[in-house]
Amino acid sequence: MTSQEYVTLDSAEQPGISIEELQLATRNHGMPLEALRYDVTPLGLHYLLTHFDIPALDPATWRLRIGGWVARPLTLTLDELRARPTVTRRVTMECAGNGRARLSPRPVSQPWLLEAVGTGEWTGTPAADVIDEAGVTPDAIEVVFTGADRGVQGGVEHAYARSITLDELRATGALLAWGLNGVALPPQHGAPVRLVVPGWYGMTSVKWLTSIDLTTTPFDGYQQAGSYRFRQTPDEVGDPVTRLAVRSLMIPPGIPDFLTRRRIVDRGTHELRGRAWAGRAPIAAVEVSTDGGRTWQGADLHTPSDPAAWTAWRAVWHADAPGETEVCCRARDTSGNAQPDTPSWNLGGYAVNAVQRVAVTVR
Amino acid sequence: MTSQEYVTLDSAEQPGISIEELQLATRNHGMPLEALRYDVTPLGLHYLLTHFDIPALDPATWRLRIGGWVARPLTLTLDELRARPTVTRRVTMECAGNGRARLSPRPVSQPWLLEAVGTGEWTGTPAADVIDEAGVTPDAIEVVFTGADRGVQGGVEHAYARSITLDELRATGALLAWGLNGVALPPQHGAPVRLVVPGWYGMTSVKWLTSIDLTTTPFDGYQQAGSYRFRQTPDEVGDPVTRLAVRSLMIPPGIPDFLTRRRIVDRGTHELRGRAWAGRAPIAAVEVSTDGGRTWQGADLHTPSDPAAWTAWRAVWHADAPGETEVCCRARDTSGNAQPDTPSWNLGGYAVNAVQRVAVTVR
Repeated sequence: MTSQEYVTLDSAEQPGISIEELQLATRNHGMPLEALRYDVTPLGLHYLLTHFDIPALDPATWRLRIGGWVARPLTLTLDELRARPTVTRRVTMECAGNGRARLSPRPVSQPWLLEAVGTGEWTGTPAADVIDEAGVTPDAIEVVFTGADRGVQGGVEHAYARSITLDELRATGALLAWGLNGVALPPQHGAPVRLVVPGWYGMTSVKWLTSIDLTTTPFDGYQQAGSYRFRQTPDEVGDPVTRLAVRSLMIPPGIPDFLTRRRIVDRGTHELRGRAWAGRAPIAAVEVSTDGGRTWQGADLHTPSDPAAWTAWRAVWHADAPGETEVCCRARDTSGNAQPDTPSWNLGGYAVNAVQRVAVTVR
Repeated sequence: MTSQEYVTLDSAEQPGISIEELQLATRNHGMPLEALRYDVTPLGLHYLLTHFDIPALDPATWRLRIGGWVARPLTLTLDELRARPTVTRRVTMECAGNGRARLSPRPVSQPWLLEAVGTGEWTGTPAADVIDEAGVTPDAIEVVFTGADRGVQGGVEHAYARSITLDELRATGALLAWGLNGVALPPQHGAPVRLVVPGWYGMTSVKWLTSIDLTTTPFDGYQQAGSYRFRQTPDEVGDPVTRLAVRSLMIPPGIPDFLTRRRIVDRGTHELRGRAWAGRAPIAAVEVSTDGGRTWQGADLHTPSDPAAWTAWRAVWHADAPGETEVCCRARDTSGNAQPDTPSWNLGGYAVNAVQRVAVTVR
């Protein structure tokens, strides 16, 4: 298998996951869905996608360079950054490829099913304030964040880098974060400092930051122009992947079968619980179905602990009839965006937010 | 796919990984091999296999019951357990199924490639001392450890449970552990208390402990008698899987290609580094090959930080010739056990410890 920009497999031709995809799946990891019980995902359970290798950066010698179209280029040590005004926020983060592995034909990349999500309690300082201190020049329109992680993707060797417009950066309240859940960032989450962009898919939140550059033209690096675009064919430019599509997930009820993950639930009354999130507007409603999507009931919503954190929900299920069923959940936001019954396909497998369906045996 | 005791797939018939296997791979996770740079695996990078769901146990109401063939059954709170003499040890742990996914035919279970390993710094109290306080009766031969994690495997509903003989338990210095890397056990590693058995495959180190029972007959639970046995056919009883087979792994050199994980290395002199471990005897030697296994050179070994922890090794590679090659490593222990060139097959895919081979392009 080559490292082309996009590779898809027709499930009729090759139903199984390839060794290349499995290599990614055993390195990276999702959040087991029972961890939806925690508002803040415990360390080690938050999803993790590393494009290349986890770099080993020494906090004592690490420097962050702010340059490009700024009046006063800056170079900051970790101590200098940590001496700034500190903000701690709960932010729900999701990989843009979450849900990709069930598409047909299947985009060949990290084969996420549903678990590429988590909510961290991130501590840092507003990125916009640091940039303002360097002095944004009038022509600057974008901010490019570059990490220390380096490799080849799409045939191009590069350090992982992404941009966001200055206006979008200010609107999100993005942080330069050095803490997660009350401790120093673990290596795999971008130590010593990473970007955290609330409301955007995870590819925007560059880890292992080494430089921030203001530019007067749109960034055309591989991870911006080559990847993370909504395309139907490889020759399209495509719209960029940006904010989180609305999604809800549930804690699978009952107990699992080890291999199939099918759930077994005793007859009786059960509470269905989960969380929902959306990057464009607050969650307006979550509905559950316990008959495979034929009928739906509203779930109770809790107030999120942060505007950028997921919304907990719960509903009651009277599981009276033994037999096989599917339990489903779906959310919509206050702008009317809703989860579709079936996923909409794109070449990279991005923002696949179809209704979750959990196979259950009631006994 | 059913949840039979053993399912294998012939790679000629179905080369790809099934959705059932992928579901396990996105929940569980390996240690990215660049994390071999750390003697103690950082939180969140240690491998993790959860048979069923991660339980939610309240440390305040949690109790550990010690019963069966003891003179004085005990029930301990977490505070009572933590008030005992405390030991902290670095223990290398590996999943018995590590390496399973490259066997042919492939045993269908969690599809590990190489990454199911890690070294934790575990804090707890010797399990044998707690059992002795309860008073072992003369007929007792085994100790059964039962966790709170419950589900169906092999068609049998059960809480995860494993036994070890009293003699083996004493010999290993097994701990009842409530701490990992200086903090309270995270939920996914068995909070509030788990068993840690140095030198044995991970299935022995029962998580989310609820009870310890002394027995006068060999334990015949599913995870002991049905699973974790070396079998060629399903009707064999098979020898039990016990101590870690000798193995070495290296930090993949150079930089990766995102999708294929193929490594790219610049011409010049490089240091190859990794770690080796074995459950039956100390590591005696590690050798590396940079020509696909045709010639081998000895690596320098460091003294392990704990008798139960892995041994760091390093070797120098003069990568003078551009082109394609394979870099390999292999270890042997002081009893003469050595890693085989090709894996030996068994129905469950256990203790697959063949030589690691890393594809590299020298440029």
